[in-house]
Amino acid sequence: MNPALSQIGQQMSQLTGVRAIMKDIIETLRLNRGQDLINLSAGNPLILPEVEQLWRDCTHELMASPEFGQVVCRYGTSQGYEPLIAAVVDDFNRRYGLSLTERNVLVTPGSQAIYFFAANAFGGLSTNGELKKVVLPLSPEYTGYGGVSLSPDTVVAYRPRLEIFETDHTFKYRPDFQQLQIDKTTGCIIFSRPCNPTGNVLTDLEVRQIADLAVPYGVPVFIDAAYGPPYPSLNFTELAPIFGGNIVHCFSLSKAGLPGERVGIAIGDREILSALEAFQTNACIHASRYGQAIAALAIANGALAEVSVNVIRPFYQRKLTVLEETLRTAFPDDIPWFLHRGEGAIFAWLWLRDLPMTDWELYQHLKRAGVIVVPGSSFFPGLTEPWRHKQECLRISLTASDEEIALGMERLAATITQVYQESPSRSYSDLFA
Amino acid sequence: MNPALSQIGQQMSQLTGVRAIMKDIIETLRLNRGQDLINLSAGNPLILPEVEQLWRDCTHELMASPEFGQVVCRYGTSQGYEPLIAAVVDDFNRRYGLSLTERNVLVTPGSQAIYFFAANAFGGLSTNGELKKVVLPLSPEYTGYGGVSLSPDTVVAYRPRLEIFETDHTFKYRPDFQQLQIDKTTGCIIFSRPCNPTGNVLTDLEVRQIADLAVPYGVPVFIDAAYGPPYPSLNFTELAPIFGGNIVHCFSLSKAGLPGERVGIAIGDREILSALEAFQTNACIHASRYGQAIAALAIANGALAEVSVNVIRPFYQRKLTVLEETLRTAFPDDIPWFLHRGEGAIFAWLWLRDLPMTDWELYQHLKRAGVIVVPGSSFFPGLTEPWRHKQECLRISLTASDEEIALGMERLAATITQVYQESPSRSYSDLFA
Repeated sequence: MNPALSQIGQQMSQLTGVRAIMKDIIETLRLNRGQDLINLSAGNPLILPEVEQLWRDCTHELMASPEFGQVVCRYGTSQGYEPLIAAVVDDFNRRYGLSLTERNVLVTPGSQAIYFFAANAFGGLSTNGELKKVVLPLSPEYTGYGGVSLSPDTVVAYRPRLEIFETDHTFKYRPDFQQLQIDKTTGCIIFSRPCNPTGNVLTDLEVRQIADLAVPYGVPVFIDAAYGPPYPSLNFTELAPIFGGNIVHCFSLSKAGLPGERVGIAIGDREILSALEAFQTNACIHASRYGQAIAALAIANGALAEVSVNVIRPFYQRKLTVLEETLRTAFPDDIPWFLHRGEGAIFAWLWLRDLPMTDWELYQHLKRAGVIVVPGSSFFPGLTEPWRHKQECLRISLTASDEEIALGMERLAATITQVYQESPSRSYSDLFA
Repeated sequence: MNPALSQIGQQMSQLTGVRAIMKDIIETLRLNRGQDLINLSAGNPLILPEVEQLWRDCTHELMASPEFGQVVCRYGTSQGYEPLIAAVVDDFNRRYGLSLTERNVLVTPGSQAIYFFAANAFGGLSTNGELKKVVLPLSPEYTGYGGVSLSPDTVVAYRPRLEIFETDHTFKYRPDFQQLQIDKTTGCIIFSRPCNPTGNVLTDLEVRQIADLAVPYGVPVFIDAAYGPPYPSLNFTELAPIFGGNIVHCFSLSKAGLPGERVGIAIGDREILSALEAFQTNACIHASRYGQAIAALAIANGALAEVSVNVIRPFYQRKLTVLEETLRTAFPDDIPWFLHRGEGAIFAWLWLRDLPMTDWELYQHLKRAGVIVVPGSSFFPGLTEPWRHKQECLRISLTASDEEIALGMERLAATITQVYQESPSRSYSDLFA
């Protein structure tokens, strides 16, 4: 049966960004089962024994209590499980000197749902028929933002400035305030900090500047802190979360060991959260409560913050060091490779300046060399303008063993070196000499 | 801060139906804490010890296995947790002689999400700009259907025929096929069977007739079996689920003791489910996995079906008997009260013919008499035509002790009797003589 889809049905049937490529990766892995293929494409975090143990301990505690029945055998409120909300309010107030009340918190089934509700409650057709944009001030960005709007052409991103550290083989994206357009056509703003996939951390000043631009138009700013402190604390540089006014601080427990449970939490202005909460009530009633209940325990007793800083962060930070050191050794001096400054997250982001083929072609070469990474062009949702840079990047996952990462990067460097050296134009050496 | 809402934001900020009245009920309970007030308004199922024990046992089993980490510490596929899908396929194939494959199953975060995805993937503006309706063939219906469409005026319901059993003080709604309009303006069809709130069970013939009307237009029919067999089996009459063609059989674990975990399951044509799955990926990635994992265990070992038939069904069926017997004793002969035939669900549905006030006014009278029920007019989503019957009904919850139900029904019968007797017109006795 082939039922007719509505406009929204058509829009939401599209799998955007990295999801479109996962099919090829899964097929490649299936066909090469048992082969020596290093998979550095995954966005699925590894199971860290200490983190699993934390969630097992919390589950035991829940099971030992009569609260278990209240959690799983009863409906809850759409706003979220009360003890989780209380734990978040206490912890954030204490940690950041805030004066949040329980009215400043909303729990959703994963943080993607926050952006879905926000993109459509504030973006899309306005009541007077104008299109309000969902603005991504930076690009590349989280690939999932490409799928959150129910209407086409609503998500728009802006090309960043590049700050290049030539001798260091690193670079950093900066929002380009000359280009960034925030005005009465803006419905809401979303960005990730630390950024998935690049590991970029916008500075406090950049965040304030974006939020201030949005204030006169009453535009809410959603900061996706899925990798930020205090949990999972996957920031590798200092990062102070920013709260208040039109800023909604959003976080997730997915990188703190609970991706399967889908717990997203938004902290911000009650009026903004009310609109999202009502949307949630109509769409799915409330988030699942078991994940909320064990999170409430782990936040209240401090164990989640502790395991984040002492286990999760050093684990992925070491992976990034292995990756970076291997590339520094493996690449000849004259290859124009640049790693994005590793300020957070579970990926490395590699830019290959003047790459003499597309990222998709390079992905195919790398597969043949036994290493799977994700072509970078999947990570520019909303950036429609042609820009060669979009085809010059790769996302490399840190969710593998040190040995796999080292071997994978050796293969990757060798393949990329060969690609540059065999390129007829060899323009890279002219540019880089 | 008062951010501007989009058209969709406005639509989804409305809390429809019973949700709008819950505020008054919560406030009433708060103000009368400690008073003798019997609350028969709840839709939240009671915690039955055997059911809680089942979910505790399954959780212990999950915790004793390395699968625990795979369930909570990893992302899953959008289609659902593979062992749950396999368990559902096996159980339904064996039970109903079907030949489902895993491609015929989709898991969502609660069954409300199925109807939300379906109402908007198939209903709403079509690609050529026409409005495709979400048709509810029967009314009253589940109040939550009133909130599932992202666009206004999309959900439409039809006035039913009433089959009245005068001497028995019972009645039954029948779909009125003279009125029911299913054609190229129909996006999808949704109805609950057994019906929430009335306990009505559409006959096999009525279901087939509705599905057949939809076939020529390629319209999918979603049958909400949240109260149906094989779990939670809250049908009190024979009920064989119907599968195949354009029918999507949808069920939920909320009435089988897992409302907190939000597990909805759709069984049907792969093309229909694919559209919903992609929508889900973009909106919230996938349903939480702990609830799916314990459900997989309880379905595979038969415990869920067993506890449904031997514990859940008799528990609520007995409540309904208490309610009905109390009303039969408590009402004088000449009061025109009619209970809907109790064919399933956790509510009783009372119709008061020619009630000399509105259901909302009666609700206030009943509160003063110490019993809270829900005015019936909340349960006619999509039925815009004026119809006095909409103001003549009450929903009475069975989620209370036998004693509370008996005492609540005595108070209710006394109050209603007084209301009729004090009515100036007393037209009821003319009609009923």
